Amino acid sequence: MAPLTLYSHPVGPNGWKVAQVLSMLGLEYETVMKDFGDVPNGVKHPDFLKINPNGRIPALIDHTADDLIIWESGAIIMYLVKKFDKEHKLYPESLAEQALVDTWFFFQMSGFGPYTGQAVWFKLLDGNKDPYGSARYLNEVHRMLKILEQQLTKPDSQGWLVLGKLTIADLSFLQWVRFLYKIGIDLEKEYPAIFKWKEAMLSIDAVKASTVGEVWSP
Amino acid sequence: MAPLTLYSHPVGPNGWKVAQVLSMLGLEYETVMKDFGDVPNGVKHPDFLKINPNGRIPALIDHTADDLIIWESGAIIMYLVKKFDKEHKLYPESLAEQALVDTWFFFQMSGFGPYTGQAVWFKLLDGNKDPYGSARYLNEVHRMLKILEQQLTKPDSQGWLVLGKLTIADLSFLQWVRFLYKIGIDLEKEYPAIFKWKEAMLSIDAVKASTVGEVWSP
Repeated sequence: MAPLTLYSHPVGPNGWKVAQVLSMLGLEYETVMKDFGDVPNGVKHPDFLKINPNGRIPALIDHTADDLIIWESGAIIMYLVKKFDKEHKLYPESLAEQALVDTWFFFQMSGFGPYTGQAVWFKLLDGNKDPYGSARYLNEVHRMLKILEQQLTKPDSQGWLVLGKLTIADLSFLQWVRFLYKIGIDLEKEYPAIFKWKEAMLSIDAVKASTVGEVWSP
Repeated sequence: MAPLTLYSHPVGPNGWKVAQVLSMLGLEYETVMKDFGDVPNGVKHPDFLKINPNGRIPALIDHTADDLIIWESGAIIMYLVKKFDKEHKLYPESLAEQALVDTWFFFQMSGFGPYTGQAVWFKLLDGNKDPYGSARYLNEVHRMLKILEQQLTKPDSQGWLVLGKLTIADLSFLQWVRFLYKIGIDLEKEYPAIFKWKEAMLSIDAVKASTVGEVWSP
């Protein structure tokens, strides 16, 4: 049995987000793919609600720590880097540098992820039935993309969000920016620095090994 | 000059969230109250965008650390507990316990906060112009409140989210649950454990000293 079990979903970006970090850290883990809804293998089924009462992927069990259960991709990634990233490959050592990474990491968790998710719901999954909602969230996604584009083109950025190198802050955005084309955003044309950043992450072997080729087929 | 400057707003819950943690840790800080929009003192004015390119409160400057700027309430609170909570008053010492706190802390940051914010927008600030959006987010808020109520009534909870005691996870929800009455949710009647939890936090002197009496007057 692998020391870590990851509960994920082929379509949910936050499961892949954790897989990419696990892979980058060279950790051995087993993936259990869940279904949506309250079907027997579903995330809303009572069996899975015992693992995550919020009924969502991802969740992680650490079998080397009394089967500790962690859910929320942000909490899982924090745990992984604190426990396993002893060489500070993805998360820096100093408190000040951690704060800079955390700033963008939380911006992804509390802003970019939730609002992009809403844009995808209104515009795509819900078939654009409520144009008010579609416009509201698509507008917000573009507002945030401009902030990212600006950050990535700062003279000292070297194409990364902070510290001039890849961190969990960058990786937390990857799976989310990958599917923006589904809501009609052409990154290469509209946000060239974000496009380059995405491609740079996808060219890393450990990322390639832990992600899906086709992002998303709803 | 105080060693820490907090940028906040009288109405924004996330500024008060940071103030409550600063106060609980007994830290000396100065508050700069911002306005909304791109007025001279506004969060969208170029002057403030140099501090937080996302144009939102809260932001924190640590004058004892080369004027380090941190934004996103989650990142700020993580920094504060790592730097100043040496007695583990609000954030535990062990990695496993930190993961449990982080799980609920990130649930607030990525779920409860953003979706409650949307419910407030559609139902209240936007005058319920889009009933589809109002219903969608109000429904989501109730779904999450049920999860919190269940967690707080677990036999070993002692009325707190995790570890049987107050942590940053609990405090991160306080200002958000305080204004739910504005969107028609009667906590005392519908979610008695959440009501008790809120009152328990508000009865703490350091919390009382750092929060507003009237939650919110839009």
